[in-house]
Amino acid sequence: MKEEAIMKLVPLGDRVVLKQFEAEETTKSGIILAAKSQEKPQQAEVIAVGPGGVVDGKEVEMQVKVGDKVIYSKYAGNEVKLDDEEYIIVKQNDILAIVE
Amino acid sequence: MKEEAIMKLVPLGDRVVLKQFEAEETTKSGIILAAKSQEKPQQAEVIAVGPGGVVDGKEVEMQVKVGDKVIYSKYAGNEVKLDDEEYIIVKQNDILAIVE
Amino acid sequence: MKEEAIMKLVPLGDRVVLKQFEAEETTKSGIILAAKSQEKPQQAEVIAVGPGGVVDGKEVEMQVKVGDKVIYSKYAGNEVKLDDEEYIIVKQNDILAIVE
Amino acid sequence: MKEEAIMKLVPLGDRVVLKQFEAEETTKSGIILAAKSQEKPQQAEVIAVGPGGVVDGKEVEMQVKVGDKVIYSKYAGNEVKLDDEEYIIVKQNDILAIVE
Amino acid sequence: MKEEAIMKLVPLGDRVVLKQFEAEETTKSGIILAAKSQEKPQQAEVIAVGPGGVVDGKEVEMQVKVGDKVIYSKYAGNEVKLDDEEYIIVKQNDILAIVE
Amino acid sequence: MKEEAIMKLVPLGDRVVLKQFEAEETTKSGIILAAKSQEKPQQAEVIAVGPGGVVDGKEVEMQVKVGDKVIYSKYAGNEVKLDDEEYIIVKQNDILAIVE
Amino acid sequence: MKEEAIMKLVPLGDRVVLKQFEAEETTKSGIILAAKSQEKPQQAEVIAVGPGGVVDGKEVEMQVKVGDKVIYSKYAGNEVKLDDEEYIIVKQNDILAIVE
Repeated sequence: MKEEAIMKLVPLGDRVVLKQFEAEETTKSGIILAAKSQEKPQQAEVIAVGPGGVVDGKEVEMQVKVGDKVIYSKYAGNEVKLDDEEYIIVKQNDILAIVE
Repeated sequence: MKEEAIMKLVPLGDRVVLKQFEAEETTKSGIILAAKSQEKPQQAEVIAVGPGGVVDGKEVEMQVKVGDKVIYSKYAGNEVKLDDEEYIIVKQNDILAIVE
Repeated sequence: MKEEAIMKLVPLGDRVVLKQFEAEETTKSGIILAAKSQEKPQQAEVIAVGPGGVVDGKEVEMQVKVGDKVIYSKYAGNEVKLDDEEYIIVKQNDILAIVE
Repeated sequence: MKEEAIMKLVPLGDRVVLKQFEAEETTKSGIILAAKSQEKPQQAEVIAVGPGGVVDGKEVEMQVKVGDKVIYSKYAGNEVKLDDEEYIIVKQNDILAIVE
Repeated sequence: MKEEAIMKLVPLGDRVVLKQFEAEETTKSGIILAAKSQEKPQQAEVIAVGPGGVVDGKEVEMQVKVGDKVIYSKYAGNEVKLDDEEYIIVKQNDILAIVE
Repeated sequence: MKEEAIMKLVPLGDRVVLKQFEAEETTKSGIILAAKSQEKPQQAEVIAVGPGGVVDGKEVEMQVKVGDKVIYSKYAGNEVKLDDEEYIIVKQNDILAIVE
Repeated sequence: MKEEAIMKLVPLGDRVVLKQFEAEETTKSGIILAAKSQEKPQQAEVIAVGPGGVVDGKEVEMQVKVGDKVIYSKYAGNEVKLDDEEYIIVKQNDILAIVE
């Protein structure tokens, strides 16, 4: 994410930009993620958070923040490639839990 | 669940983290669960409960608590693997009943 | 249902626990139910009734009670096995009529 | 419908119990119904009417009454067999018109 | 429609009873309709109009009247046969336009 | 559209009657439309506009007017043939943009 | 976009007119977009923005402006060809993020 200072994704509404952990990366909380080929890992780090507000006629308050480790629904999100980095943009509602 | 003190799943909104009973485990209430291969057991223990609040524009009050034995809909939930333990994260609405 | 005193299903929200009549059982009102193999009987007895209240953002008042004989939609419900007994858990809205 | 006095279907909410006319029956208004094999007749007589009230969060007022001859949507309803009689239970919204 | 005085379809809610023009019939406004075999004509005359009111929780005001020539959506409606006459019963929302 | 004075389509609710440009027609704003065989053109002229008002329980204000050149969604609309002229009737919501 | 002064797309409601970046174009923020054949790029520039307001019964406030570089959902939008230029018209809700 070296160019992040140069180029930034600013999500709209209740959207959240996620970045999946890389294979065999050890997180701060000691999670070791084995990136098996057939199994898309569902853990990711929050990179950017939309402002929330009225989305589809309903008030949404954002509950995750940049840096959170989260688990998200595997049937959700848009994969996006920017500067050779891959991101997933999900709606906050597709984030299932925060990993602490 | 030995690392649970170290690593915790904090569900968002009306979500609930469940853990299926293991095969042939005897619960406190004397249930003996035969884990037949083709038949996914639908009983689980509540591991963590989201805060509820406004979810998808509707106020949700949480009605289950950690430790509850519950029956959940077999068509619901996201399977999640964390530290070699498997969990199911469901919305409270997919929990059908508490087993007392 | 011998262990019912020991183990109880407590449905959430607007859910209702049903138990199908057994084959060729004669009910109090004189119904004789022929349990043909291909034809899932749709009559059942109400075993437990959820508290109702706000379900999916809408106030639901429960209209069936334990012991009612009911007809329910054949496309509805979750089959649940507990202590070798089979139950169906439906939403009250899937109960079509009470048989008196 | 000889046992109707003994056994009664009491529909819930906005549901209506219907009984199809038998083949070649002549109704009071002079309708002769040819029961062709491939063609499910869509005319029926109202046998019982639910109380209406709040159904799925919306107030429903019942507009048909017992004895009405009605036409109902052929894609609607649950077929129910009781005491060797066949009934269809529909929501009032699936009744298209009253035949006078 | 000779028996119409004897037998009448009274639509419920926001429903409208339509009768398709017959092949090569010349309407008052001079439309000549060629009834090609594969092409279901979508023009019809309004035969009866429901009372409107609250339908599915929403107030509906009826905007067509008996005798109107209308165009309706070809994916809508229930075909109904009564006294050897064929009718289509649609919801007013499936009527696209009035032909004047 | 020579008979338009004689025969008129009056759309209901939020519906709009459109007429596709003919092949190779040059519009006032200089658009030349090549009518390729496989490619249904999505540009059309507004021929008639419904009154708007409450449609499906929601207030709709009409934003297009007769004579507007518009682009509409290719997955929308009902094709209608009247007096040998073909029209498309769409809901205003299926009109994507006005071409000025 | 040379004729843009002559011919303009004015989107309705909450719609936004987008133009995809051309292959290998270098944007101001230094993004180099490789236009691989099978991979539809999801980045685009905002060309025109609808007025927002009440859309489908819900108040929508527009949050993007002409000139914004955006990422949009690959399952969304209508492709439109005008004066040999291709555009995508999406609802604002299908824009996932702004690239800054």
